[in-house]
Amino acid sequence: MQTRQIHLVRRPNGVPVAKDFEIVSSDLAEPRPGEIEVEAVLLSVDPYMRPRLNADQALNEAMLGTGIGRVVSSRDPAIQKGALVRHGAGMRERFVVPAGVVRILHPDPALPLSVYMHALGGTGLTAYGGLLEIGALKDGEQVVVSTAGGAVGSVAAQIAKIRGCHVVGITGSDAKLSWLLDEAGIDAAINYKTSDLPAALAAATPKGIDVYFENVGGAHLDAALKLMNVNGRIPLCGMISTYNGAGEGVNNLFEMIYRRVRMQGFVSTDFAGLNDRFTHDMTEWLKAGRIKYQETIVDGFESAPEALIGLFSGSNAGKMLVRVSD
Amino acid sequence: MQTRQIHLVRRPNGVPVAKDFEIVSSDLAEPRPGEIEVEAVLLSVDPYMRPRLNADQALNEAMLGTGIGRVVSSRDPAIQKGALVRHGAGMRERFVVPAGVVRILHPDPALPLSVYMHALGGTGLTAYGGLLEIGALKDGEQVVVSTAGGAVGSVAAQIAKIRGCHVVGITGSDAKLSWLLDEAGIDAAINYKTSDLPAALAAATPKGIDVYFENVGGAHLDAALKLMNVNGRIPLCGMISTYNGAGEGVNNLFEMIYRRVRMQGFVSTDFAGLNDRFTHDMTEWLKAGRIKYQETIVDGFESAPEALIGLFSGSNAGKMLVRVSD
Repeated sequence: MQTRQIHLVRRPNGVPVAKDFEIVSSDLAEPRPGEIEVEAVLLSVDPYMRPRLNADQALNEAMLGTGIGRVVSSRDPAIQKGALVRHGAGMRERFVVPAGVVRILHPDPALPLSVYMHALGGTGLTAYGGLLEIGALKDGEQVVVSTAGGAVGSVAAQIAKIRGCHVVGITGSDAKLSWLLDEAGIDAAINYKTSDLPAALAAATPKGIDVYFENVGGAHLDAALKLMNVNGRIPLCGMISTYNGAGEGVNNLFEMIYRRVRMQGFVSTDFAGLNDRFTHDMTEWLKAGRIKYQETIVDGFESAPEALIGLFSGSNAGKMLVRVSD
Repeated sequence: MQTRQIHLVRRPNGVPVAKDFEIVSSDLAEPRPGEIEVEAVLLSVDPYMRPRLNADQALNEAMLGTGIGRVVSSRDPAIQKGALVRHGAGMRERFVVPAGVVRILHPDPALPLSVYMHALGGTGLTAYGGLLEIGALKDGEQVVVSTAGGAVGSVAAQIAKIRGCHVVGITGSDAKLSWLLDEAGIDAAINYKTSDLPAALAAATPKGIDVYFENVGGAHLDAALKLMNVNGRIPLCGMISTYNGAGEGVNNLFEMIYRRVRMQGFVSTDFAGLNDRFTHDMTEWLKAGRIKYQETIVDGFESAPEALIGLFSGSNAGKMLVRVSD
């Protein structure tokens, strides 16, 4: 049978555009012994994909990425037809892979499946590990989160609230700002597009900053560095200000010296060892309504490029997903 | 009696100039019970003093700083006349202080006293703690040191050699470069003023960088960030490129994310707990000739401002000291 893939066909110049991608049909082989055939259910689109487009994403091959799929045919005794699986097979509508490369998912029936792609997926684990392990968060500390309206930032901000911290979020729209204050219940929020960020951040952090959860870089980082407390930590999760090539230099790193600030980069795969504790905690928090979330789900496999492009104009509220099938 | 102090009389604009300082005479009181009178022997001048000149250094008061002095009169039974002491009394030719604010120094007779102001003093401890504790150096790693010809950098580079590492130094003159290769015995040295630093550093680090000991910032840091290995560490000791206000922005911090790089600021007072181990190790290394050093000693109390100014034009080879008395 024929199936579709999203290919990168040229390297983007700045913000990606539709012409950088193409939808390509090809033949799908039957699964051989030990293999399974999977149909895509949900695909994830994420900011981390942008730097890949200029580096390890091959041209004229399926876009790298993760998703949840359903097994439609299995030649491996450990996986039943109909099982839901997490996979890293990228943007493919249907695919055949060795059974060992997917992980069977047993979603909690009280939660929607989509949360396993964000709060209970890689983005939630990124927030959890980045804040608690890399950020070494202590109860009651002073916390600032950038891109606090996004999939990772919104979870990080709420985990800090659960830990009794004073939490300030930085975001880029008044709608996200209202959501952060009214739904997520953080202590203060700043729209960096309509504020003088250094002044607004200083006003919102009268006790300084112990942990700055960083997704932006540039002027955001410079503003936070001026306010860090001694022995503060900056878990460096992302640097979206640089991904499309229009990066601003960072000028205040010298502030790290006398304040003994630690800044550390990380990726979610560093936290595989935390997965059981994370799944337990996050399932409880979601069921108790202590972690709220927003998701923007676009329908149809062919919408994936436009969903990815939209991330860089802030068109998503919370986690951006593509629904391929029900 | 009358004694002299070096005062800051106006805040420097960029690189300090002679007119920013003044030599002021004043009366010295007799020591009271529990106090000692000390004459300065050696004064330290250091890059860290520059940011202070625009911040916590008071105008029209003695310049903050450390030195070695000799007790000329004691009204405290724990300290004998003639004892050598370390002090933080600043740039004063003679002074009276409570006995408790100095530390008695018992120099090893096989070593010159001046080493207690650099390799066996705060600058040596800064290199030792920064490299081993903050940098978490492991034997045999790939190490780059900036300002490798300076007081801290030259010690850090040689400690890394003692630990079996591959060591590359970055410096600003061919004389320092030759000293690093021929005397200190490091593996490669780069004169950043006459080289294309990113290209030269890449060529000198074919196995990447595990620890980058940072004293400069700006373009130096950007070049190193591109070459860091996964789980690399950047002990942030200084950022001399920014101290005189002409700072260059840093643009490559995003490299820290996928490489999981940790960058951490520190100051030598963080390492008080290491002092005994440091003194033991460094004394052995110096006596065995495993740590070489250069020092630039200017004579006369009144030379202190010019010595400090000279630091920022690289007029020192190694540690800069002022000899006030023998």
